[in-house]
Amino acid sequence: METIKSEVLNGVRTITLSRPDRMNAFNALMLDEMLAELDAADADDETRAVIVTGEGKAFCAGADLGKGGATFDYTDAPKEEFRDEGGILTLRLYNMKKPVIAAINGAAIGVGITMTLPMDFRIAAPNSKMGFVFAARGIVPESNSSWFLPKIVGISKACDWIFTGRIFKAEEALQEGLVSEIVPPEELLKRANEKAREIADNTSAVSVALSRQLLWHMLGSDSPEEAHRLESKMLQWTGSRADAKEGVSSFLEKRKANFTMKVSEGMPDFLSSRKQ
Amino acid sequence: METIKSEVLNGVRTITLSRPDRMNAFNALMLDEMLAELDAADADDETRAVIVTGEGKAFCAGADLGKGGATFDYTDAPKEEFRDEGGILTLRLYNMKKPVIAAINGAAIGVGITMTLPMDFRIAAPNSKMGFVFAARGIVPESNSSWFLPKIVGISKACDWIFTGRIFKAEEALQEGLVSEIVPPEELLKRANEKAREIADNTSAVSVALSRQLLWHMLGSDSPEEAHRLESKMLQWTGSRADAKEGVSSFLEKRKANFTMKVSEGMPDFLSSRKQ
Amino acid sequence: METIKSEVLNGVRTITLSRPDRMNAFNALMLDEMLAELDAADADDETRAVIVTGEGKAFCAGADLGKGGATFDYTDAPKEEFRDEGGILTLRLYNMKKPVIAAINGAAIGVGITMTLPMDFRIAAPNSKMGFVFAARGIVPESNSSWFLPKIVGISKACDWIFTGRIFKAEEALQEGLVSEIVPPEELLKRANEKAREIADNTSAVSVALSRQLLWHMLGSDSPEEAHRLESKMLQWTGSRADAKEGVSSFLEKRKANFTMKVSEGMPDFLSSRKQ
Repeated sequence: METIKSEVLNGVRTITLSRPDRMNAFNALMLDEMLAELDAADADDETRAVIVTGEGKAFCAGADLGKGGATFDYTDAPKEEFRDEGGILTLRLYNMKKPVIAAINGAAIGVGITMTLPMDFRIAAPNSKMGFVFAARGIVPESNSSWFLPKIVGISKACDWIFTGRIFKAEEALQEGLVSEIVPPEELLKRANEKAREIADNTSAVSVALSRQLLWHMLGSDSPEEAHRLESKMLQWTGSRADAKEGVSSFLEKRKANFTMKVSEGMPDFLSSRKQ
Repeated sequence: METIKSEVLNGVRTITLSRPDRMNAFNALMLDEMLAELDAADADDETRAVIVTGEGKAFCAGADLGKGGATFDYTDAPKEEFRDEGGILTLRLYNMKKPVIAAINGAAIGVGITMTLPMDFRIAAPNSKMGFVFAARGIVPESNSSWFLPKIVGISKACDWIFTGRIFKAEEALQEGLVSEIVPPEELLKRANEKAREIADNTSAVSVALSRQLLWHMLGSDSPEEAHRLESKMLQWTGSRADAKEGVSSFLEKRKANFTMKVSEGMPDFLSSRKQ
Repeated sequence: METIKSEVLNGVRTITLSRPDRMNAFNALMLDEMLAELDAADADDETRAVIVTGEGKAFCAGADLGKGGATFDYTDAPKEEFRDEGGILTLRLYNMKKPVIAAINGAAIGVGITMTLPMDFRIAAPNSKMGFVFAARGIVPESNSSWFLPKIVGISKACDWIFTGRIFKAEEALQEGLVSEIVPPEELLKRANEKAREIADNTSAVSVALSRQLLWHMLGSDSPEEAHRLESKMLQWTGSRADAKEGVSSFLEKRKANFTMKVSEGMPDFLSSRKQ
């Protein structure tokens, strides 16, 4: 891989955006490598959670502007088929089976911050700064941020950040709920790993995978009736299996659970269930 | 009734989960008795609001785990028809015509907390604790909590509580907006009754019934156009009737309103209106 | 115009509700004049943002109750065609291309506060007070507030305000996120203008117009896939045009951008794009 680095340690896959000479600017190759790595994370039972962070001073400074004023000129793209690359990435994140934690170590601008919106947790170093700068560049919000951002910080704050395009600091992000914690730079990855292990140490991987898909997909659902149908299906499927037996038994016996089911070994197809 | 107690006093129906030797654990009989009591509350014009609380130290410790590791094994249930019992309860609550207040007097774990999500207000005693423990038991979120919880506390906090399955205290619930007030145990029911009377003393029962259905159903609506259609219909219906005349007249005359319309005596069928 | 005043100054159109002897109470003529003025604001490239405020002591005391108990009696309206006037106003606001700022200078009661919900920002003077008083008047929430309010303050606070119908102060509105700032009365319009200029000085008008429609419409969208389709279309359209070239070039050259595109001169038809 040329644009990212990845390693799995102690059940946690850390993906590091790695174009430090370009402030980890996002480009088409980074999209492809991220997609491959997220697929690998979902397929790998050793990966209980994913951390995304940046190499060097920045998290991700945004789209690579190497083409200057022509950066966003997609004239050559077939009109009916053009798809925003950031949006392809965030749709993949939205469908992940493993929790994803953004460890924002520095500037997260444009797609650098919008790519984190469908991640489950965002923690940030105090020196990091964010900006939804699209209107200041003459374009529009991307990476499906028009859908995700108001759900995280409310419509009024989303309008503020998007309409002004201004850069703001980690402290404002914390106050508005865009990040849940500010952590000193030297402890950022340690804290992200703690959060990942808190999940991995106490829960069934299959339960978390199904729960993640339920929570994110029901965010756009018309009514609790749809949740009822899906939850009933998932509850019936999990309830008769090994992890449910172990989960309840270990609780009653006041001992730590030893969950054995694997995400890779067949799970109800959540996405097709939704469409049925 | 074997699993709950209920009384109507001063216009408020208090339903008490009452299996104190089992920490008020939820079972199929409690579901049936709750459904019957909620139907009674909606049908009874003396009931202006409902309070749900628990007997003894706990609010509700969750599903009854009397069957041990087989608790959630629904293998015998017909595959196409299995429906989560907690979800049946919360769909009924979602459709209530009377406001519902959860007075959380102690532990509210699993279905013990998810059953409160479609209640309008949650107030808690300082010693209460909560937990969305499903992933720690090898199952998935139920009671349509995948739909309700992110709407109340945001997607990121919902992911935190659901993915870790951890138990947390009333103070964290307050900070995150899961409960709106922490009240000393001895004043918990008094405060819940005050809230109920604040509604009953100042408003039309029919207006509140229609408003409740509007607010909860529009939470999953695709666009304000649907709200416009429904509100217009409800506004036209209420506007020409006795409570509107009394509401405006009493306001102009600076006196307390004496609303006379009854929820039991024909209201526009909100639910079928939505589907039209 | 009889019920409102309007002026454009320094790129900002200030619309003042102007029936000070009736506390700026809302009536059918005010609706018509507001609709005409909002159309004018969208059509006028000199208008980069809109401020709505009230003349005299009140912002808007609600529906004009001049007809007393018959105020809301729409018996004569054709049953299938009756449409709530407040709802017509808020649907128009929801579709605006220009940001709208509510400068709440005093009492904002009933439709006086619900008309502000689809505005992007609400700032208030310390002496202002609000109330969703519908249930206390024997009617139901209008102006599509059943859709907008829970998205702004959460379902539980929306239930509180709507079910009790009580009047509350600016401070509570601030705490619950209904207003974003409290500003001394003498600085209220100055602050609203600052916010408007922060947008106008730094961004492309076309980008803001498309962003506004994206953000508000995706609030009710079923899934990020719809956002992906729309954002891709808008991104492709803007990306090859003058403002994107200028936005990126000025950023790289570390100079202020000089955006030249006009909202009036053809923009992708966002609304019909949504329906395709």
